[in-house]
Amino acid sequence: MIERIGRRTLRFSDPPRLLSAAAAVGQKEGAGPLGAQFDYVARNDRMGQKSWELAESALQRTAIDLALQKGGLTRDRLDLILAGDLLNQCAGSFLASLHAGVPYLGQYGACSTMAQGLALGACLTASGAAQRLLAAASSHFCSAERQYRFPLAYGGQRAPTAQWTATAAGAAVLAAPDAAKSSPLRITHAVFGRMVELGVKDANNMGAAMAPAACDTLAALLADLGAQPRDFDRIVTGDLGRVGADLLLTLLRGEGIDLAPVYADCGVLLFGEGQDTHAGGSGCGCSAAMLCGPLLRELQAGKSRRLVLAGTGAMMSPTTVQQGQPIAGICHAVVIERSGA
Amino acid sequence: MIERIGRRTLRFSDPPRLLSAAAAVGQKEGAGPLGAQFDYVARNDRMGQKSWELAESALQRTAIDLALQKGGLTRDRLDLILAGDLLNQCAGSFLASLHAGVPYLGQYGACSTMAQGLALGACLTASGAAQRLLAAASSHFCSAERQYRFPLAYGGQRAPTAQWTATAAGAAVLAAPDAAKSSPLRITHAVFGRMVELGVKDANNMGAAMAPAACDTLAALLADLGAQPRDFDRIVTGDLGRVGADLLLTLLRGEGIDLAPVYADCGVLLFGEGQDTHAGGSGCGCSAAMLCGPLLRELQAGKSRRLVLAGTGAMMSPTTVQQGQPIAGICHAVVIERSGA
Repeated sequence: MIERIGRRTLRFSDPPRLLSAAAAVGQKEGAGPLGAQFDYVARNDRMGQKSWELAESALQRTAIDLALQKGGLTRDRLDLILAGDLLNQCAGSFLASLHAGVPYLGQYGACSTMAQGLALGACLTASGAAQRLLAAASSHFCSAERQYRFPLAYGGQRAPTAQWTATAAGAAVLAAPDAAKSSPLRITHAVFGRMVELGVKDANNMGAAMAPAACDTLAALLADLGAQPRDFDRIVTGDLGRVGADLLLTLLRGEGIDLAPVYADCGVLLFGEGQDTHAGGSGCGCSAAMLCGPLLRELQAGKSRRLVLAGTGAMMSPTTVQQGQPIAGICHAVVIERSGA
Repeated sequence: MIERIGRRTLRFSDPPRLLSAAAAVGQKEGAGPLGAQFDYVARNDRMGQKSWELAESALQRTAIDLALQKGGLTRDRLDLILAGDLLNQCAGSFLASLHAGVPYLGQYGACSTMAQGLALGACLTASGAAQRLLAAASSHFCSAERQYRFPLAYGGQRAPTAQWTATAAGAAVLAAPDAAKSSPLRITHAVFGRMVELGVKDANNMGAAMAPAACDTLAALLADLGAQPRDFDRIVTGDLGRVGADLLLTLLRGEGIDLAPVYADCGVLLFGEGQDTHAGGSGCGCSAAMLCGPLLRELQAGKSRRLVLAGTGAMMSPTTVQQGQPIAGICHAVVIERSGA
């Protein structure tokens, strides 16, 4: 069952299993430092489609199909798909699962969407509402750029604090404990995040907008568990970028928490120094692909045993920014453990 | 606990309670046949805000505040808000709860969002993941019109099959069974819908795009329960409009199900004949306000005892329509009962 411990943390006494996962990325992401650890690297970011929006949906569908394949499952074994992305009306996700024939719940948590889907999915599989479900998220540089910023061909200058929307997708299959007894990966805890808004209005500095929310959620998780950062092998945010990651460390230090020894950020990890992505990667697909690729591989290979994914998102739209509204951050966290020796 | 019965229906053995609810609507909706049954009717659809988007968020916030007030609750008693709307990046909802300080999960189910939030919320409160949570949804004619169609001042002609996006919001507080023992309203069953796409590409005929999904979900619910339509006092879709409602009756008749004696549609109920809304109302706020206003009042007053809300949505965006993609429908259903004599 699901138990609340402390103020905000959910504990799964018989934890749902993370059965299988897959990550699909674009060319630039595949050429990054962790490129070899993604399941699929596109030869062409258009994915053979007529539009960037369809390309994004094809990338998400690829991640979904590969996750199912790796778990030895077909779509009809899923009770539910929880998916989301940055496109207006979450079009990348509903197009990806349009003909899947699986019940579908669209999620919108901006770049925190993968963590939102995993936290919600863990509750649903732990409670019997679903035996097996899939959580997915995606983003695409080209569909995001033209929706949020400028037409690609315009070649607008980017601010030093700006992040680079990743062309990436991740998908993970969660299962009820009794539906996947032998699976060693499990989600043991989850924290749903609240919006935190400290007056940031600069859409080119999402890291600053999101760091306070990451601080809020991680401080709550550690306090509720009575844990120290070192009780985890890795605490990973996704995706604050370099600016936000530095801010988070500073904010947590103010609360007496030193995250540095175990901390990493998906946006910082995804691209190399020479890839001209300024503050790092972002987009729903960034943390989704980093988790479903490199981070879970590390767990599976026994290189780490206990991981926190703290997915971060910026609650804004081009319209709200144009209307002068502040940008709130949000951060949902899940604890993923590998059982056994 | 949550038990799966038949193919797709979830049954809550100790059902979560529907503690309180409120509906807030615009002037035109307030002037409709059920206007007196909404908790709040705006004197001015701009709600004293600088933009239509902020007006929509103010309307949703009004519904949330009234629902809490009617339940004798303050925000800090909520563990979670599940909310969504039609605006890009679900801006109406995140703006409405920006400073609530409550964990927040953005939902995107197009016009089915209220039913999606209630079905998901029922799972979360039934399982212990939340003691109390709030589900909300909204839409606003003026913010939707300029985002999906034309600038308001353009005065574009509307097709006879088109629906009128309601200026409306609804909010409902769900509670775990042990947190609200005395509350007579309970959610006993839920069905998560799958996307059904039969080739409709006309964004001015959403009813036709959504009716097949409503048929899919309602047929599954009735089969799983071994029930007839007459086992319910009302089966209400939200919102197929006149065109979609007729289609649904025809489709279900093809499956040997006569829904007519207990059937109604939120989009048909919301506006009167003389209000020039063509096929009827639509928008996330339409079914949200109809449920949280007139329909729950009927249950509370003992005029009905067992209700199905089958929230229907059309999965499309202006971009996908312009790119020639077909429009899938989706339909999530909840069964709401009043206990006691």
